[in-house]
Amino acid sequence: MEKEISQAVIRRIPRYYRYLGELIDDGVERISSNELSARMRVTASQIRQDLNNFGGFGQQGYGYNVKYLYDEIGNILGINQQHNIIVIGAGNLGQALANYVKFEKRGFVIIGLFDVNPALNGISVRGIKVRMMNELEAFVKKERVDIAALTMPKEKADETANMLVSLGINAIWNFAHLDLELPEHVVVENVHLSDSLMQLSYNIAKQRKRKE
Amino acid sequence: MEKEISQAVIRRIPRYYRYLGELIDDGVERISSNELSARMRVTASQIRQDLNNFGGFGQQGYGYNVKYLYDEIGNILGINQQHNIIVIGAGNLGQALANYVKFEKRGFVIIGLFDVNPALNGISVRGIKVRMMNELEAFVKKERVDIAALTMPKEKADETANMLVSLGINAIWNFAHLDLELPEHVVVENVHLSDSLMQLSYNIAKQRKRKE
Repeated sequence: MEKEISQAVIRRIPRYYRYLGELIDDGVERISSNELSARMRVTASQIRQDLNNFGGFGQQGYGYNVKYLYDEIGNILGINQQHNIIVIGAGNLGQALANYVKFEKRGFVIIGLFDVNPALNGISVRGIKVRMMNELEAFVKKERVDIAALTMPKEKADETANMLVSLGINAIWNFAHLDLELPEHVVVENVHLSDSLMQLSYNIAKQRKRKE
Repeated sequence: MEKEISQAVIRRIPRYYRYLGELIDDGVERISSNELSARMRVTASQIRQDLNNFGGFGQQGYGYNVKYLYDEIGNILGINQQHNIIVIGAGNLGQALANYVKFEKRGFVIIGLFDVNPALNGISVRGIKVRMMNELEAFVKKERVDIAALTMPKEKADETANMLVSLGINAIWNFAHLDLELPEHVVVENVHLSDSLMQLSYNIAKQRKRKE
């Protein structure tokens, strides 16, 4: 039986993946937890502990095989398979997501953009056509959609998310500034930019006090 | 002496602020930790514990005064004062940030957009002019800049961040997909969208396994 891994660990794992990808680009084939620790600025014991959650991968006195670890973490993160994404809200943020070529390299492929604004109807972003919301249902029934990104105003976000779930989409990448109320089986990942700004301002205030 | 508050608590605090703001909009004047708990879907004891970090605010048998708590949390978060922001990178993401009117309501005011692309020179986003990077130094010397948002490609992000710090900017809101190497006094808040997507895909894979 697999043990439950905490979301705190899961939050750190993509960072390992990013660093290992850079090591591969640099031609590094193996690395000790101490070297990885210096590079990532986390303790070596933290690294060993995190990776032990997934069965270790390390070999005493040898270190980690970078490519193997990279691939294994990729498997764990589920990015060994393609994820099709639709973006609901084709404003600046939706278009920004559609323009991120890097997502595609990781298997996250944006296959559709949707909006209610007729001015956007039919325009293309990096070859991805913007469709109107009334075309959504037919689209989802035809294409496999794994993730819906919500980059729309918060007022209609909850309703839209529930509609998407009723169409069989079980994962929401939510940029709307509210907590969605969805059935328990739905996986939600929030990007709350205002919350992030407030965290920043808290840390600015703290830093100022420290200086005084 | 103030005690150190963990970043985990700080990550939860903006959410309280958001919910209290909604309560004010709904005309609610006071609320018990149990009611707030039901609304926010965290335990009442978690709420009491979190708010005790900042001195409590609650009164036995009375609950929380919503407006007072809202204002106090605002003070704690440092959003009782204006923060001026410049955005480095006026592509889709930079323009999306400039278009978020809500940030301004919280005192986060975007006062400048910068880019290297001459095609963007002089265009305006919600009245904010896009300037070229060679105008940055003069701008920062003339205006008070509290936060620089980096919405530029990662290749030049580290260099640019260090240049901004040398101009006296001590807070970076980093959207570039790397960990910046900056002096310790600099406050950094990262928004790593790829990491967030990978976390989502991990949870999708976990959910699929659960169903099998």
